[in-house]
Amino acid sequence: MRLLLGSGGFRTPERIALWVEQMRDWLGPARSVLFVPYALADHDGYVRMMIERGLHSGYELVGIHTLWDPVEAVRKAEAIFVGGGNTFRLLNSLYRLNLLDPIRERVRGGMPYLGISAGTNVACPTIRTTNDMPIVQPPSLDALGLVPFQINAHYYTGTNFVKHGEQFVEHFGETRDDRIREFHEENETPVLGLWEGGILRIEDANVQLLGSSARLFLKGKSSRDLVGGARLPDLPCKPA
Amino acid sequence: MRLLLGSGGFRTPERIALWVEQMRDWLGPARSVLFVPYALADHDGYVRMMIERGLHSGYELVGIHTLWDPVEAVRKAEAIFVGGGNTFRLLNSLYRLNLLDPIRERVRGGMPYLGISAGTNVACPTIRTTNDMPIVQPPSLDALGLVPFQINAHYYTGTNFVKHGEQFVEHFGETRDDRIREFHEENETPVLGLWEGGILRIEDANVQLLGSSARLFLKGKSSRDLVGGARLPDLPCKPA
Repeated sequence: MRLLLGSGGFRTPERIALWVEQMRDWLGPARSVLFVPYALADHDGYVRMMIERGLHSGYELVGIHTLWDPVEAVRKAEAIFVGGGNTFRLLNSLYRLNLLDPIRERVRGGMPYLGISAGTNVACPTIRTTNDMPIVQPPSLDALGLVPFQINAHYYTGTNFVKHGEQFVEHFGETRDDRIREFHEENETPVLGLWEGGILRIEDANVQLLGSSARLFLKGKSSRDLVGGARLPDLPCKPA
Repeated sequence: MRLLLGSGGFRTPERIALWVEQMRDWLGPARSVLFVPYALADHDGYVRMMIERGLHSGYELVGIHTLWDPVEAVRKAEAIFVGGGNTFRLLNSLYRLNLLDPIRERVRGGMPYLGISAGTNVACPTIRTTNDMPIVQPPSLDALGLVPFQINAHYYTGTNFVKHGEQFVEHFGETRDDRIREFHEENETPVLGLWEGGILRIEDANVQLLGSSARLFLKGKSSRDLVGGARLPDLPCKPA
């Protein structure tokens, strides 16, 4: 299996350049990439935005929403790229269109999978570590399970601050680490907190971290920081 | 119906004092209050923490988890107070213990309902405007529907900042207003964004805002700020 999973926040020139470099290296001479824009409401606008920001990396992005038969599109794709937005809406669409099994089969058969943000979340066993608002109710929180661990995209540590005029004021909502600790009160699966701009390059059990550091949370243990370039240690979880 | 719904972030002396004043005014001579701590994992610890922080306002808090028959406890309570934490975990427990109907019946019959944060979220038609991580999967996102609009607790506007050393760095995840806009791409119900420290005092259709301002979001319209002390305008939604 070959996956390239980005955290999100690819909005600075350096981060975009790293994504483009990795995507090109990953896909090589592929011509077109099947793009899944269901996490946003405006599908055509999303394809345009990807191109405007350069995140298509020069490949032709074919919006799955423009095709008559999305399942057939997955079966024939050279590569699939699942974009970000609202993870609940994305997963709900994958269920509605019966796309989970076809995507799993193709990716397990070697088709490259690229995801950013919500597209990274749905590659995990469940979407139980998303930061998004549950604006729709998918039939289940179970997702593609292409990797055997959870990723928390847009990860950061510490408290949130909000600007009141020129002042930074502390926000008392749960921190991200609080939320992941609560996840582990109810679940066993390891969680990787991936900072914005971070990318995981995954070939079967070989997971390399690029572009940012990441924090690994194992239930009942202290969290541990991994630096960019590191390979992810073996995790105490079964392969998906 | 009588509800006192707090946003969250009751962690400054002024905010706590306002909550205590309102709770006393609301409950008057009631002796004990049935406290629902299911949004946190440590139920006993939660009751202790409420008392330590003074948020019990001098009333006896009886943890529903300490009672043999939670449904019977709701039927007999003088008042119910639902605490904060993870909204998905809270709602899942309410479903598991068959508490939704008994709570609805009692509150519609006049029993005072107090909620903070997650406890405020579950008073709404659904939990689709929670900020929490979906660490468990409740049977449905539909909640108590005691009020006919959604509340977004811990509301703030603008961008998030995270501290790197002494520097404040912008975080590129969706802003709260982005998330509520996405909610309205998929749903019709009005949303009230309630800043931390804010309280809604609700007597039937009469909703008064205390302790903070709030932002009202109606689908397809510009949002509108309400100041503390204001009464909520009539909303274009059916009573629950």
